[in-house]
Amino acid sequence: MSTGELFVSEMLGTGMLLLLGAGVVANVILPKNKGFNGGWLLINFGWGLGVFSGVYVAFASGAHINPAVTFGIWASGAEEFGPGIPVTLANGAIYISAQIVGAALGSAIAFLAYKKHFDEEAPAPIKLAVFSTGPEIRSYGWNFVTEVIGTFVLVFVVLNFGNWPGDIGPLAVALLVVGIGASLGGPTGYAINPARDLGPRIAHALLPIKGKGSSDWGYSWVPVLGPIVGGVLAGLLAPVVAFG
Amino acid sequence: MSTGELFVSEMLGTGMLLLLGAGVVANVILPKNKGFNGGWLLINFGWGLGVFSGVYVAFASGAHINPAVTFGIWASGAEEFGPGIPVTLANGAIYISAQIVGAALGSAIAFLAYKKHFDEEAPAPIKLAVFSTGPEIRSYGWNFVTEVIGTFVLVFVVLNFGNWPGDIGPLAVALLVVGIGASLGGPTGYAINPARDLGPRIAHALLPIKGKGSSDWGYSWVPVLGPIVGGVLAGLLAPVVAFG
Amino acid sequence: MSTGELFVSEMLGTGMLLLLGAGVVANVILPKNKGFNGGWLLINFGWGLGVFSGVYVAFASGAHINPAVTFGIWASGAEEFGPGIPVTLANGAIYISAQIVGAALGSAIAFLAYKKHFDEEAPAPIKLAVFSTGPEIRSYGWNFVTEVIGTFVLVFVVLNFGNWPGDIGPLAVALLVVGIGASLGGPTGYAINPARDLGPRIAHALLPIKGKGSSDWGYSWVPVLGPIVGGVLAGLLAPVVAFG
Amino acid sequence: MSTGELFVSEMLGTGMLLLLGAGVVANVILPKNKGFNGGWLLINFGWGLGVFSGVYVAFASGAHINPAVTFGIWASGAEEFGPGIPVTLANGAIYISAQIVGAALGSAIAFLAYKKHFDEEAPAPIKLAVFSTGPEIRSYGWNFVTEVIGTFVLVFVVLNFGNWPGDIGPLAVALLVVGIGASLGGPTGYAINPARDLGPRIAHALLPIKGKGSSDWGYSWVPVLGPIVGGVLAGLLAPVVAFG
Repeated sequence: MSTGELFVSEMLGTGMLLLLGAGVVANVILPKNKGFNGGWLLINFGWGLGVFSGVYVAFASGAHINPAVTFGIWASGAEEFGPGIPVTLANGAIYISAQIVGAALGSAIAFLAYKKHFDEEAPAPIKLAVFSTGPEIRSYGWNFVTEVIGTFVLVFVVLNFGNWPGDIGPLAVALLVVGIGASLGGPTGYAINPARDLGPRIAHALLPIKGKGSSDWGYSWVPVLGPIVGGVLAGLLAPVVAFG
Repeated sequence: MSTGELFVSEMLGTGMLLLLGAGVVANVILPKNKGFNGGWLLINFGWGLGVFSGVYVAFASGAHINPAVTFGIWASGAEEFGPGIPVTLANGAIYISAQIVGAALGSAIAFLAYKKHFDEEAPAPIKLAVFSTGPEIRSYGWNFVTEVIGTFVLVFVVLNFGNWPGDIGPLAVALLVVGIGASLGGPTGYAINPARDLGPRIAHALLPIKGKGSSDWGYSWVPVLGPIVGGVLAGLLAPVVAFG
Repeated sequence: MSTGELFVSEMLGTGMLLLLGAGVVANVILPKNKGFNGGWLLINFGWGLGVFSGVYVAFASGAHINPAVTFGIWASGAEEFGPGIPVTLANGAIYISAQIVGAALGSAIAFLAYKKHFDEEAPAPIKLAVFSTGPEIRSYGWNFVTEVIGTFVLVFVVLNFGNWPGDIGPLAVALLVVGIGASLGGPTGYAINPARDLGPRIAHALLPIKGKGSSDWGYSWVPVLGPIVGGVLAGLLAPVVAFG
Repeated sequence: MSTGELFVSEMLGTGMLLLLGAGVVANVILPKNKGFNGGWLLINFGWGLGVFSGVYVAFASGAHINPAVTFGIWASGAEEFGPGIPVTLANGAIYISAQIVGAALGSAIAFLAYKKHFDEEAPAPIKLAVFSTGPEIRSYGWNFVTEVIGTFVLVFVVLNFGNWPGDIGPLAVALLVVGIGASLGGPTGYAINPARDLGPRIAHALLPIKGKGSSDWGYSWVPVLGPIVGGVLAGLLAPVVAFG
């Protein structure tokens, strides 16, 4: 596929992920929504099924929709990012830039879907939380550790898909993301994807959101570097333990 | 298949969808039910599994069970609505009329299943909400936008099914609808299907429901036109980005 | 397979269903459980995954684990109840008696698993509700209608499985039962299976349960006859609309 | 595969299980988490998807990740523990020791992911509950019965997987574990796996957890012996009733 097609595929897939992911957060935390206070499992399913939808959409490029996956594949020593797409620095840059752009756009469309609810009174950090993650207990070091662990699980298990018969395709990664959210999302909100956090943070900074506060750039490196480190560690370890 | 068979297939499938869909709403919002106040995720699963059941039932006609899908397939330039069913205006009219009739009948049967609970005291808008959608913040323009976006996601992702191995059949669309409900259903209740909203609204107007109020026809065009526009946009875009 | 094997297969499968089904109800409604007040969706998943487990266990006999399915297959005009098992009155009687015995035993084992929680103080109807269904609004006629509708959905959709590629096996019926519970279980607790209700009611009458009250035999015919009628109607209609 | 590879495979798989399993408990019961008080179904999904992930990771060794499964396979008279791994006492010891080590390590990593939340004030038994199970009503005899029953279901149904077409692979065991948690987890918290309980209890005893109390060794034999007995019973019964 062409470079442009690669860009569009990853952009659309990551856009779909963020449209559904930012959407479910908006539903649960913005006032007057039907899903208001709907609980953590609802949020986990929203993100998981956002991945499900995004993977179908981005099939042509292998559906990374996450720079941590791109880094992890690179670290694993694989020769291709996707079908017919060699691992090169240029291709990696296309993947990641498309993911960030797509994530920003997807969150902006979620903003439109929930426009009237953003116009309601709500604390500024709540409105930011629709776009980007933030920790419950701020501690850059430990928050970083949590993001490394969560992303390691994501990329390491994804690299082990295909071991079993009974392929359930995009459903497998969707369920994995539901599980990571349920199990490791408590402290930081499981970015586990640099584009998922950075793109929407840029969108938050740019969009005319009523009662908008800080975009919290001080925290923004944690959900970018943590997932990259977690993805690289998973990519390095997976081939070593691929027995059988 | 014959025209009559096509009609029956879509009518039964959409009827099954509404029986389970209206049913879960009744369970959660009508007094004295075992699922009363059961939460948004329960509603999302009820509708998703209503789609799951309806798709199995309507297999012979390709299981649109939603005019937005019919419009989307038409807009995508496909030659068939279903196996051996050419895209013609007449066939499209059969699909859509069967869907509306089926949706009305399915919601009427849900009314029978919950008859004693409809006989309890409850606000008239609650009783209407078992049948048709309504916005949390009334704003025809933004409500329309929300329905366009939600339906775009539905039809666009459905048109991307089949890209991956590991076919999970009707489960895929069921999960997609769970995800759309979780993520984009907060403002308007995700009609994302003109028949799902219009048919039951007609049933609401006709049925002898105790303490029945307005059928809110003023809002009724939003969940009809919004989904049509969303489905057409998805049908137009999907072939353009079908790389690979 | 031999008659004895047939009996054991259905007994074990229905026993597994009731062990998990009665178990989840005990978890949610008996005092001091970790799942106490865990919500309707939790109950729906417990029963759905009880079906899932029971179907794996009873594979050799075709996994009816429900007399309504046995009646429905008979009404559909099929020649076999399961692989190599002809539709005869004698075989039908074996299926149904095994199902009732299995359901009684399964609920008794659930009683053992929750023994200390049954020893706690709780209203007698709560303790009965672990075993058998009861309506929220008692109205034999309308409760009967609700059970007919719910069971019709179960058997009609099951008879439409196999229409699609992407076979997900026992998961499909598990999800269907989750959906019926979510959508049609509000008024009566969705017996949708005569053995599921009658067997445990017998067990309740026989077991030495602390603070046990009435087994409510006055209601007991509803969750037996309703599901039989629903299953027969589904079995009669399914072949008529099997186009394609 | 080599003995070392076998050890690493089971250790990694059980580690993944405990990382996600201990993680979801931490999320739901430790203060200030996003999933705090998220409900029993959330916990059930976290553990179920922990199994899902662990099974993918431990594919090379057949993914027991549970001594009760190892005992059950031995009791069933099978000739192999996994692909090319004969049933011998030495291999069984490797499986089980790897599972215990992996479970301890996985829970320790979950401790790191939730470090700042462990530093908050919370009752000592709550902090222990992230690692190991405990009964709601302490009664060693009945708690033992509950663990026997739950583990019997696990191993008996797992030994019946493969009976049906429509193989959904690791998802099947994940769903089964969700179901056992929902249905039989109320009284004791469903260890149903000796390594899952013993390994993390050792970790709890060793780790520098703020405000740590007793590791409750008095109860520790119940979630070890109960699951072994349940697994052995399932392994003995399964071949007897494998008709068809």
